[in-house]
Formats: sequence, C-alpha cells, structure tokens
Amino acid sequence: MRTVNQQRFEARRRQIREAALACFKRAGFHQTSMADICAEAGMSPGNLYRYFDSKEAIIETICEHDRLEVMSRIAAIGGRQDFFDAMLTVAAAAMTEGAEREKSRFACEVLAEAMRNERVAAIVRRHNAALLEMCTQAIAHAQAMGQVDPGLDARLAALLLMGTAEGLGIRLMLHPDVDGAGAIDAFRLHVARFLGLGR
Amino acid sequence: MRTVNQQRFEARRRQIREAALACFKRAGFHQTSMADICAEAGMSPGNLYRYFDSKEAIIETICEHDRLEVMSRIAAIGGRQDFFDAMLTVAAAAMTEGAEREKSRFACEVLAEAMRNERVAAIVRRHNAALLEMCTQAIAHAQAMGQVDPGLDARLAALLLMGTAEGLGIRLMLHPDVDGAGAIDAFRLHVARFLGLGR
Repeated sequence: MRTVNQQRFEARRRQIREAALACFKRAGFHQTSMADICAEAGMSPGNLYRYFDSKEAIIETICEHDRLEVMSRIAAIGGRQDFFDAMLTVAAAAMTEGAEREKSRFACEVLAEAMRNERVAAIVRRHNAALLEMCTQAIAHAQAMGQVDPGLDARLAALLLMGTAEGLGIRLMLHPDVDGAGAIDAFRLHVARFLGLGR
Repeated sequence: MRTVNQQRFEARRRQIREAALACFKRAGFHQTSMADICAEAGMSPGNLYRYFDSKEAIIETICEHDRLEVMSRIAAIGGRQDFFDAMLTVAAAAMTEGAEREKSRFACEVLAEAMRNERVAAIVRRHNAALLEMCTQAIAHAQAMGQVDPGLDARLAALLLMGTAEGLGIRLMLHPDVDGAGAIDAFRLHVARFLGLGR
C-alpha cells in the first residue's frame, strides 16, 4: 500500500507531466524551457527540480506513462481468446480518439527531437523496443492459439502492424476529410488479410 | 527551352533549398532562422530574399520538390502492367534508402511544426491531398486492369498503403537492429494479401 507521501510525490509528478505536455503542445519540445514548465505548473524551479532534473527526464516520464498504458492494453489482448478483435479495438481507439491524435503529434515532435538529441533518441529507442517486444509476444501467443498465420515472423508482423497503425494515425491527421470509420474498416480488412484470418 | 536566366534562377533556388535542408537537419525547422540559411548558402539576405520571402516559402518548395519526385514515381507505376511489383519497388526504396530515412525525419519535423504554424499546416495538407489523389488513381487504374481486388475502396486503400509505408519507415528508424530486407519481405506479403493478389 502506498504511503501518503508516495501518493503526493506521484501526484506532483503527474502535475508536472501534464504542465510539460501543455507547453510542448503550444511551443514544441525544443522551444520549451524548464522555466516555462514551472510557470505552467505553478511551481518554483527549486520545487520542480526535486522531481525532474531536466526536460529530458520529463520526456522520459511521459514516454514511460504512455508505454505503460499501451502495454496494459496489449497485455489485455494477450490474455483473450478473441485476439484479433481485441487488437483492433486497441488500434482503432489509437487512431480515432482525439486524445490519441494529440499523442501522434507529440510522437512526431519527440521523433524530430531525437534526430538531434542523443538522450531523447535513447529514450525513444528503449521505449519502442519494449513495446515491440510485447507486441511480438502477443502475436506469438495468438499464433500458438491458432488465431494467426503461423508462417509469419512474429517480430516483423508486430513491426508492420505497429507501423500501419501509426502511419494510418498520421494519415488521418493529415486528411481530416477522410471518413474515420471507413478507414478503420479498411484497416480491419488489411490486418485480417495479413494475419491470414481470411475474414 | 529554358533560358540561361531561368536556369540560373532554378539553380539558385536549389542551392537555397539544400542549404535550408542542411540547417533544418542540424537545428530543426523551428530553430533555424533565415540568417542561418543565408550563412549556409553563402548568400546575402538581400540576395536570398529575391528567391524566398520566408522560411515557410522554403518549406513549400522542399515539399513541392519531394511531391514531384514521388508523383513521377507513382506516375511510372500507373503506366505499367506489373503494378504490384512497381509499387513495391517504390515503397521499398522509400523505406530502405538512407536518403529516404532522412526524408522521414524531415517529414516528422514538418508535421510537428504544422501543429503550431497554420501556414505550414496548409502546405502539408495540400501536398498530401495531391499525393493521396494520385495514389488513389493508380490503385483505381490497377483495379480496372484486374490487378487489384475491385472490392476495395481505392482512396482508403491508398491511404492505408501510404500510411503503412510511412509508418514502417518510421519503425525502421526506431529499430536499427531490425533486418531491413526481412521487413521489406513482410511488407510485400502484407500489401499483396491486402490487395487480394493471393501471393
């Protein structure tokens, strides 16, 4: 059971994370200073630095938070009989929810920054390697259960499916006139045919 | 036939475009000033402003240049009997060539900027709408020739294929340890099954 102090510590970290996200959205990661984040969070620098020693450390916690969220969704898929439908539910949510579109934008921002900032690049690589590994295991599990074509390389299949969901999410941002529900249906057909489900 | 003056004008614009790309790669779009681009191109501001009145105008010409290049590749596909192989050649090149990976990074940078800069957002939307339209026509043509499942919505299929190639390109950047050739093979299978080619 978490102590009151731990709960306060985590609440404060969440407050900073949300303030940082608001700043990054407004001005971009590179242009945001720790002072901007302090102002947004309504905290003094002395107080904020007790929780995070740099912008990169805040990026790290944002990526970590996203990863845990995605991982818990994928973990839920792994344990289910209807792997295919469960996975599509996750992917469709990622592509259509407004909040997730914000995340696509943030991901682009972080990726652009990773080009120039080795510390951010290392965070992004670690974050994505863990996600890819988990997605690979979910597919391998579905193959073992006879739900996915066993001839596919699970890791490459995971890479492709993650890439497809991500790329389609970006495309939906770029083409606001495209019917989101139609795109999700096309994605469903796309994935089903690839996984060899014949639906 | 182009006059010598026109050729000089275009050569100068290309020189500026390449100088700007070098700056954006080093420091990012947002952090690069027109003065930085002048220094990189070895031109005076007075001279550079004869060609471009803003960073956004340079972004526009870079997007335009990329679009014409991609369009000429897609146009070449549209006219060929072996639509499927021709398309995969283009997509595989986009995903594996080092130069194209640079382009993926630049695309992320522009996309992040488009969040905050309406002029850049308009360029990105226009650029992508034209590409999507051309890719849609190529797929519709292949459907008419019996090379692609006629039951697919050509525009949504184009959106998915562009998204998949783009997303996989990003994934390959994020996972430098993944075997690029294996990923291209998986992509080939993915696309073939989706298009209903049964290969």
